[in-house]
Amino acid sequence: MSGLLLSATLPLSAQQAIFEKPSNLISPEIGKDGSVTFRLFAPFQKDVSLRVDGWETAMRDSLGIWSVTLRGQEPGLHTYTFLADGLTVLDPSNVYVERDVTSLFNEYLLPGGKADNLAVGDVCHGDVHYVWYPSRINGKQRRAAVYTPAGYNDNPQRRYPVLYLLHGMGGDETSWLQLGRAAQILDNLIARGDVQPMIVVMPNGNVARDAAPGYSSLGFERPEFNLPHTMDGEFENSFPEIMEYVDKNFHTLAGKDSRAVAGLSMGGFHSMILSRLYPYDFGYVGLFSPATEASLKGLGAESDAYRDGASMMKRQFENPPELYYIAIGKDDFLYDDVKAFRGELEAAGYPYKYTESEGGHEWRNWRVYLSEFLPLLFR
Amino acid sequence: MSGLLLSATLPLSAQQAIFEKPSNLISPEIGKDGSVTFRLFAPFQKDVSLRVDGWETAMRDSLGIWSVTLRGQEPGLHTYTFLADGLTVLDPSNVYVERDVTSLFNEYLLPGGKADNLAVGDVCHGDVHYVWYPSRINGKQRRAAVYTPAGYNDNPQRRYPVLYLLHGMGGDETSWLQLGRAAQILDNLIARGDVQPMIVVMPNGNVARDAAPGYSSLGFERPEFNLPHTMDGEFENSFPEIMEYVDKNFHTLAGKDSRAVAGLSMGGFHSMILSRLYPYDFGYVGLFSPATEASLKGLGAESDAYRDGASMMKRQFENPPELYYIAIGKDDFLYDDVKAFRGELEAAGYPYKYTESEGGHEWRNWRVYLSEFLPLLFR
Repeated sequence: MSGLLLSATLPLSAQQAIFEKPSNLISPEIGKDGSVTFRLFAPFQKDVSLRVDGWETAMRDSLGIWSVTLRGQEPGLHTYTFLADGLTVLDPSNVYVERDVTSLFNEYLLPGGKADNLAVGDVCHGDVHYVWYPSRINGKQRRAAVYTPAGYNDNPQRRYPVLYLLHGMGGDETSWLQLGRAAQILDNLIARGDVQPMIVVMPNGNVARDAAPGYSSLGFERPEFNLPHTMDGEFENSFPEIMEYVDKNFHTLAGKDSRAVAGLSMGGFHSMILSRLYPYDFGYVGLFSPATEASLKGLGAESDAYRDGASMMKRQFENPPELYYIAIGKDDFLYDDVKAFRGELEAAGYPYKYTESEGGHEWRNWRVYLSEFLPLLFR
Repeated sequence: MSGLLLSATLPLSAQQAIFEKPSNLISPEIGKDGSVTFRLFAPFQKDVSLRVDGWETAMRDSLGIWSVTLRGQEPGLHTYTFLADGLTVLDPSNVYVERDVTSLFNEYLLPGGKADNLAVGDVCHGDVHYVWYPSRINGKQRRAAVYTPAGYNDNPQRRYPVLYLLHGMGGDETSWLQLGRAAQILDNLIARGDVQPMIVVMPNGNVARDAAPGYSSLGFERPEFNLPHTMDGEFENSFPEIMEYVDKNFHTLAGKDSRAVAGLSMGGFHSMILSRLYPYDFGYVGLFSPATEASLKGLGAESDAYRDGASMMKRQFENPPELYYIAIGKDDFLYDDVKAFRGELEAAGYPYKYTESEGGHEWRNWRVYLSEFLPLLFR
């Protein structure tokens, strides 16, 4: 007896009494064998499917409970929604939801291997601070997130190196913490001794906004992917104000050997520009799936900050950074631009470290790049 | 031509082509006249309604876009979901979602009057810190949220009074910030000069957990309303460890005249107990819709911390707090217990300030009680 047949004959209220709503539906249920079962109580729907990591899978109806079990999924953080009669539905049994620019997704962590870096480990945790620093950009304050490692408060005399970690287009100061799980990665790798305890600063790279959606002076604004002034040099030109605030208010080691900058996509571009604009400030540079100047062609990104790229790079590599790290996935739409950029580095004889992974322009890769980049810092 | 008729004759994929999915559906849309319009693109659904603040309202279908306009709503923060063919659906056009214990809701802010205290004001903002303090409860660390007011970093010599602000059953250290909008209320009232700049500490009152869901050592656990050991005295007995941590790591004024404790529901109970256990520590006490010892009857809440209530209160009021504030709504299920508690205070001649509001056991009231309580502190 299917919901479809019933719907032709009974009003909704009468149908509701026939199907018993389960009091404690578990979804997603992660089995010890690594299987993942999704369940949705949807007795009046005719067609329910699962969209996990962008892939759609049919679900089967049994007395109003739709379900599907996936096997052989890669360990890691996965996102999903249901599609119920054409409507995108979040899983009412799962409170873990992340926003990626304008959309919400449920998430779950399939444990195992490197994915355990993303879990809340049974280790000492660092603190996370959402701070407002004075900025000339808006003549007021801008918001940044700052991670301080476990033990930071125990000895006020101890000073720490600093990584500036930048988000991509459509992101904000919360992205690396929420989607990137940077605090969990740092907690776990530091606890294992694989990574030096460090301060990690995550600014907001959108010059047109002072903070993430919901925290800016625009309040409950609709988030946008394509904000103006994201790559016009203003963020890079004003960057010293962030470093000044951080060095004043946190126990930092302030010097090139103790300062890194890294970012994904637009943040990779920002990192590339920042490291050559301030070559005496950054000893470690990480470009994760970066946009390059070639990617910006035709976007009218004119700025003093971007001028004389070649000579700026020359100045940077006269006294080269300890590490210039580039990572990209084989399917990334920026792959060719990054390949051309690497060609320029090689032609000029500038050393860099390169990681080429599977996959494309996605958080699954950026979390791994961060985990690979962090142990190389401040050694 | 309705979706219902179509569904009988065409497969879903063919129907999908007929209805044009709007590229930029706005929902909720707040009109200048205070109206709020909700919209959902749901062409294959037969019955869609809106549940706002727990009330259900029908929506009308026009070419697959269901909508309804509400007028005359009270300014303030409202929560809603859609109900589509019996299925609870979050609004895909609205990224603002809050968790209340085990459920997610969309939210929007209808501006006007006191509701503007809840908005992100065009004012200087305080910082929010998610910190881990050493605790004997789990022999490790527990998480707390700490608000420091705008300007806190400007003068390290300046010291601030401290409010300890406690959540209710099913809540955690994030509740007052997320559902309560405590940071926005504080930012706005401090900027207007109505409230003394202060540090606000929001601990996790669930002894069985070290942190909020998703941040605890249980990771992506299913949140629960009824955790064990929430009112067994352990939280209250160990409270000095929180004060010690805060006084050590923040620029506090550490003394009864500069320390307040307040909370809602279970947190109101905790505040009542804490203020009488440590009568020399708290000069200001706020009980918002508090549970009382009468409410706990039959729950087997036996604890040294709760013993000799009358003599403990007597000791507390021999050198009474500057403020003993109680607030509750007329429809609150704890109303009678609180009335009995007030009777005890009056019989003993203990002074207190009392607010009786409309409504029940709900965040709408607790945000208002906080806004009324804060200006009374540290005067």
